[in-house]
Amino acid sequence: MTDFAWTRDQFHIPLGMIYLDGNSLGPLPKATPARLERMLSEEWGEHLISGWNHCGWMQMPRRLGDRIGRLIGAEEGHMVVGDTLSIKVFQALAAALQTCPERRVILSDRGNFPSDLYMAEGLIRLLGDRHELRLVAPHELEDAITDEVAVLLVTEVDYRTGRRHDLKALTRKAHDMGALAIWDLAHSAGALPVDVAAGGADFAVGCTYKYINAGPGAPAFIYVSPEHADHVDPALAGWLGHDAPFAFEQGYRPGEGIERMRVGTPPVLQMAALDAALDVWDKVDMRKLRRRSLELTGLMIEEVETHCPGLRLATPRENEARGSQVSFRSEHGYAIMQALIDLGVIGDFRAPDILRFGITPLYIGEDEIHEAVEVLARILRGALWDHPRYHRRKAVT
Amino acid sequence: MTDFAWTRDQFHIPLGMIYLDGNSLGPLPKATPARLERMLSEEWGEHLISGWNHCGWMQMPRRLGDRIGRLIGAEEGHMVVGDTLSIKVFQALAAALQTCPERRVILSDRGNFPSDLYMAEGLIRLLGDRHELRLVAPHELEDAITDEVAVLLVTEVDYRTGRRHDLKALTRKAHDMGALAIWDLAHSAGALPVDVAAGGADFAVGCTYKYINAGPGAPAFIYVSPEHADHVDPALAGWLGHDAPFAFEQGYRPGEGIERMRVGTPPVLQMAALDAALDVWDKVDMRKLRRRSLELTGLMIEEVETHCPGLRLATPRENEARGSQVSFRSEHGYAIMQALIDLGVIGDFRAPDILRFGITPLYIGEDEIHEAVEVLARILRGALWDHPRYHRRKAVT
Repeated sequence: MTDFAWTRDQFHIPLGMIYLDGNSLGPLPKATPARLERMLSEEWGEHLISGWNHCGWMQMPRRLGDRIGRLIGAEEGHMVVGDTLSIKVFQALAAALQTCPERRVILSDRGNFPSDLYMAEGLIRLLGDRHELRLVAPHELEDAITDEVAVLLVTEVDYRTGRRHDLKALTRKAHDMGALAIWDLAHSAGALPVDVAAGGADFAVGCTYKYINAGPGAPAFIYVSPEHADHVDPALAGWLGHDAPFAFEQGYRPGEGIERMRVGTPPVLQMAALDAALDVWDKVDMRKLRRRSLELTGLMIEEVETHCPGLRLATPRENEARGSQVSFRSEHGYAIMQALIDLGVIGDFRAPDILRFGITPLYIGEDEIHEAVEVLARILRGALWDHPRYHRRKAVT
Repeated sequence: MTDFAWTRDQFHIPLGMIYLDGNSLGPLPKATPARLERMLSEEWGEHLISGWNHCGWMQMPRRLGDRIGRLIGAEEGHMVVGDTLSIKVFQALAAALQTCPERRVILSDRGNFPSDLYMAEGLIRLLGDRHELRLVAPHELEDAITDEVAVLLVTEVDYRTGRRHDLKALTRKAHDMGALAIWDLAHSAGALPVDVAAGGADFAVGCTYKYINAGPGAPAFIYVSPEHADHVDPALAGWLGHDAPFAFEQGYRPGEGIERMRVGTPPVLQMAALDAALDVWDKVDMRKLRRRSLELTGLMIEEVETHCPGLRLATPRENEARGSQVSFRSEHGYAIMQALIDLGVIGDFRAPDILRFGITPLYIGEDEIHEAVEVLARILRGALWDHPRYHRRKAVT
């Protein structure tokens, strides 16, 4: 527990707020404003165009990629940061489909984040409607990996339920069937230890504004395994993925390895915020984080089941099968969440009936969970009127 | 001239620097650091996830799009900001090709920015190698628009020479031949008045880190004309371009009009910097800017031709045929530019022999041009040693 006392002090959490939505947008690291001020006034302001070399802006996508790589078990030199997660899904999927042109099935599950499925749909239309996006229930995924499948496109941790797929087992099955595996780590990176290298993932993608705390609109990342990095033909063949971007050649030649997954000019301001956020992560032991996360998500489940009988657990009860969030179902979920938010307990609602709580050990402990569940129980019992949060709230509005 | 005295005070230019590279990366507006500080500490820090609605982050891509729209003559509601210029080129090209599936030629010129050509190449490979990217010399472009052409993909102002294409005339010719026109305004937006609506452009794209001064890695923009906005099928079908992103439907349904050109989570920090940069632009009369720009680029040409006999003008001499930069050729271009930069006169070099100077009336006037040309002339004559900039430079290093 004391392992995470120091991390709590690294974040700005508004007074009285219990923030259980770091799985959607992480809070502001206290060091970020000064890092941005430096980036603006000292780097951009003083160096202007020469900042690209002098301040290392051009190298940031690779440098930051490797820093994130430690959190997800990527080999050094196989990660790059940029664009948005949807764009990175498109790149990975287009690259993966090249490797087995005779197969036509992209397999995913109905728990996947919709944008991943939309990007797949868009790509299928571009490729002339010759592929099929096959969706099964999450628990049917393993059996659905047949020798028809070209690519398995899966989000490791379900954004609604927090259910976690077995990356290693599903990847092995995919490989056994001659398919590739793309892992979306949006709800994994910074939430739990991932080992893409040991797990054999062919591609991995993710975002940095959730558990990593790099701020709204922070850039995405992409991992391409050593086996594929030098062979994929980039669908989004941007100049910064060219072998010699500043030679301004007329024809495209892909850069070495992961370089070719770069597209356009990288977002230097957002990368500075990511840089500051990663300073915290450099000191976090991911196994300890996982242990603590399971203690806290376990406590949240236990407390809600004890004090809030109307809610039904949507997250798997077994430790290994969940990420770092806890979700419950209720037909009144939307109203309940609005009441919680109004009282300073911030989670979020996902249609049709999911109440979702991100449990992030960097700045959440037992006290917050106990208080959040107490407020939730009071809302459910309609017994709020003598609660201090209700009075504070009334005083404010 | 006094029209631009006030704008000069809006930017931070390092002491003694003559910055003639705003066509590559604009300087820091003085208001930007405070805007970022507010975005970080007051918006992200205090509102966290609710910032998406409460602070208007989710609407910023459209709001900022419309503010840029004024500079390029776009109809309100037809611009959106996000991603990088290369991604926006890809979106526009994929959309344009849908409208005339029976034609197979994408026409561009050899002066186009390489990334536009690379993205076209990548898209052609994705579409099954059934299209041809046809490149001609800039002056041959008009004649090359035949009834084989599906799409004309042109950058209005050449990034090396500053030569300007006639947007209206080329678009008319394209339409007469049954083709669509995509205009890359990277070196036009904020450099000169553009009127995409009156010119009939079908699509336009551009970036905001050059003349618009929104900072390194600032987001791109895309314009889709009213004729096409509701009909294009997005190739990059991201969730934020969905008709109901937060319904989390399993299938993609494009949003209304320009909304469908949105892809993933927008870069809020970069957009805050763009917002601050546009505060200056709101008060700029684009016709006055153009008049002043032509005075200054004209002066630069005259002065260089008088004092620097070794350099050959690469930019068109006729006012209408150039953007807001002046370029010269020299086989010693690279070395000359390094000397200039070392002496605090910042332009840039583009292989093989181009010396490029961005002339931006917001913070450049006659004095800077006279001094820059004097330094350049001294470098060429090898008569630097008694120049104050040489002595200042020696004192620093």
